[in-house]
Amino acid sequence: MLVVQKYGGTSVGDLDRIRRVARRCLAARAEGHDVVAVVSAMAGETNRLLALTHAIHADPDAREQDVVVATGEQVSVGLLALAIQAAGGSAVSFLGHQVKIVTDSAFARARIQSIEGERIRAALGQGAIAVVAGFQGTDEHGNLTTLGRGGSDTTAVAVAAALGAGACEIYTDVDGVYTADPNVCPAARKLDRIAYEEMLELASVGAKVLQIRSVEFAMKYRVPVRVRSSFSDDPGTLVCAEEDSMESVVVSGIALDRNEAKIALRSVPDVPGVAGRIFTPLAEANVVVDMIVQNVSRGRRQDLTFTVARADLARAAAVVGAAAGALGVRGVDTDGKVAKVSVVGVGMRNHSGVAARMFQVLAAEGINILLISTSEIKISCVIHEKYAELAVRALHTAFGLDRAEPAARGGA
Amino acid sequence: MLVVQKYGGTSVGDLDRIRRVARRCLAARAEGHDVVAVVSAMAGETNRLLALTHAIHADPDAREQDVVVATGEQVSVGLLALAIQAAGGSAVSFLGHQVKIVTDSAFARARIQSIEGERIRAALGQGAIAVVAGFQGTDEHGNLTTLGRGGSDTTAVAVAAALGAGACEIYTDVDGVYTADPNVCPAARKLDRIAYEEMLELASVGAKVLQIRSVEFAMKYRVPVRVRSSFSDDPGTLVCAEEDSMESVVVSGIALDRNEAKIALRSVPDVPGVAGRIFTPLAEANVVVDMIVQNVSRGRRQDLTFTVARADLARAAAVVGAAAGALGVRGVDTDGKVAKVSVVGVGMRNHSGVAARMFQVLAAEGINILLISTSEIKISCVIHEKYAELAVRALHTAFGLDRAEPAARGGA
Repeated sequence: MLVVQKYGGTSVGDLDRIRRVARRCLAARAEGHDVVAVVSAMAGETNRLLALTHAIHADPDAREQDVVVATGEQVSVGLLALAIQAAGGSAVSFLGHQVKIVTDSAFARARIQSIEGERIRAALGQGAIAVVAGFQGTDEHGNLTTLGRGGSDTTAVAVAAALGAGACEIYTDVDGVYTADPNVCPAARKLDRIAYEEMLELASVGAKVLQIRSVEFAMKYRVPVRVRSSFSDDPGTLVCAEEDSMESVVVSGIALDRNEAKIALRSVPDVPGVAGRIFTPLAEANVVVDMIVQNVSRGRRQDLTFTVARADLARAAAVVGAAAGALGVRGVDTDGKVAKVSVVGVGMRNHSGVAARMFQVLAAEGINILLISTSEIKISCVIHEKYAELAVRALHTAFGLDRAEPAARGGA
Repeated sequence: MLVVQKYGGTSVGDLDRIRRVARRCLAARAEGHDVVAVVSAMAGETNRLLALTHAIHADPDAREQDVVVATGEQVSVGLLALAIQAAGGSAVSFLGHQVKIVTDSAFARARIQSIEGERIRAALGQGAIAVVAGFQGTDEHGNLTTLGRGGSDTTAVAVAAALGAGACEIYTDVDGVYTADPNVCPAARKLDRIAYEEMLELASVGAKVLQIRSVEFAMKYRVPVRVRSSFSDDPGTLVCAEEDSMESVVVSGIALDRNEAKIALRSVPDVPGVAGRIFTPLAEANVVVDMIVQNVSRGRRQDLTFTVARADLARAAAVVGAAAGALGVRGVDTDGKVAKVSVVGVGMRNHSGVAARMFQVLAAEGINILLISTSEIKISCVIHEKYAELAVRALHTAFGLDRAEPAARGGA
């Protein structure tokens, strides 16, 4: 079987850890697998390189920044190949431009368009372990590009898809995907399996296990992805296509996102084009708007409420304040102390009453719901930040996710 | 005019120095020149990266070592491009594989075979300064290669040749090429000009101003190379084709190489093939032999003396000892305390008596000559190490090289 293993920055954080990764690669090889290792920069290295570019230029050009930052993964692949050789194995390193990981030209957040697998296949055919640099690619003009934070996950999944790998293992510093953040909810359980769609919703609401784009890629190309720890032998969590058995579980996890802020416009004139005059300048200011709720109030006026990332609140408020004045809005309220709690599960498609149950649970704890938004497999409520942990724990228990005995372990 | 400027590791040793290099590039641009900057890794970076590869593998594979080490120049080009942009200029960085610096596949000591100048010309055509990574290239299979210590000099000269540059400036931490090492000979003068051939002889006998291969490249493609300091405005030394005026100067410089050791085989049987049986095993042991002198002694026996790098003496002595025993050689003497002093000048071609004058000067100082070797423009004598400085100063004075008033400055 062809196995793609991805090792993150903490897994290759120093020479001893790189040696440990080499042993893991060789163990898979000894089991008869063809092995491709995708590696990130050594922990801290990407930040060090980014800091250099910011020290020399207040607003560094993304193309040149990518040239500097991509060296982190380049050092890692060379060292891991040497470590595998030192342990008696055969290994060849490949950079993004060498295996032709072709991306668009959006420097610092490029998207993979294609991968030529020829050189990797040739190396595997000679019995070598192929060590591939994560996070980096090349555009059609031969410029070096990077894929954004967590991009090595996407490299691994894309390489697995391009080579038709039987497995894609993402080694990280947590041992899998949990029903909730164990730091918030001690009763959280590690999931054996989770559907791509659920993982996407969990990732987008704050879990940091996998880069969202890697999950989209895995879902698109039906690559089964196993998230596991490089520091244990725990089998981790398999992220895969939805199965019948999953639907019997209504809720798979509770996600929490503290990085939210709320802006409410009171008594907005109900005339065509008003939403555009609020949200167009926000988009131009690069503010990403998350949830939007509009509720009709008296007469020809309405209230308009939405959320943005907390770091963008001041900028967003300034932009909205200017637009609101021109529109004759009666008032703008902002609240930087809100959090979004979400209940996620593919089983919701076939079970009604999940939303009602969620509202009852929050009400029973005396938690006021400020905003609600729903998708096919997720219900999110914005609440006051101070109730965040209470809400997660109450929902976790109410939806039957608690493990028999609580234990504190790594991230969500 | 198209100007190629090469900046070594000390010239880009920290962010302030990189900013200074950016200003120099922009000054040349402001004079109306098209500017290509070739840069080395920041001082100390190459050694740090080499140490990492040796820490993880006792005898690291050269291909993977090159992958790791080449990141040093990659960081430098990105940072210099950003520094030029920060100073208000336009700049684009290029890696070896992007401007297609194609080399052979001799990792760690690759030789440049060709350069495609298209992307650099396109960048210059748009008014940008092209910042090119020194020291690195790509072989025909797309593997990353490096050119060996000092390889950025060769990159600069090769780029200048490929683009038909009007000037190639090598910025370093000394302000030019001297008639002798000023640390040894306080009366040494900086040369305004020196012929390629002389520079080759000076480089090969110990001066460390330019990588030898870069001088060969410059001579082959007739690229005038100016060696100057990045810390001053001194015009430095022009390394160029031999001119008529140069021939009037008989001796251009005195070189000293302390990295020598002597091995003498006493009473070697004078039969065909004996030299091969001594020097073939030395070559197989990767020992480079410098000077070889064979002098007939009594009967069918002769003495054979040669020099090797001092670091290779023990290994060479072991190899020679084994071969000598089989050949019936009467004895092997080794001497690790010798030095080679050389008198260099293209003017020698048209002036006789230089060798005789050299021997007289050394004799007058009571210095015994152990070995002599000559080329068209060089005479080298191996002497006891303790006389090295005395020999250099005496020859410097005797051949009329002394400056009016002595001053201590940078290297030879």
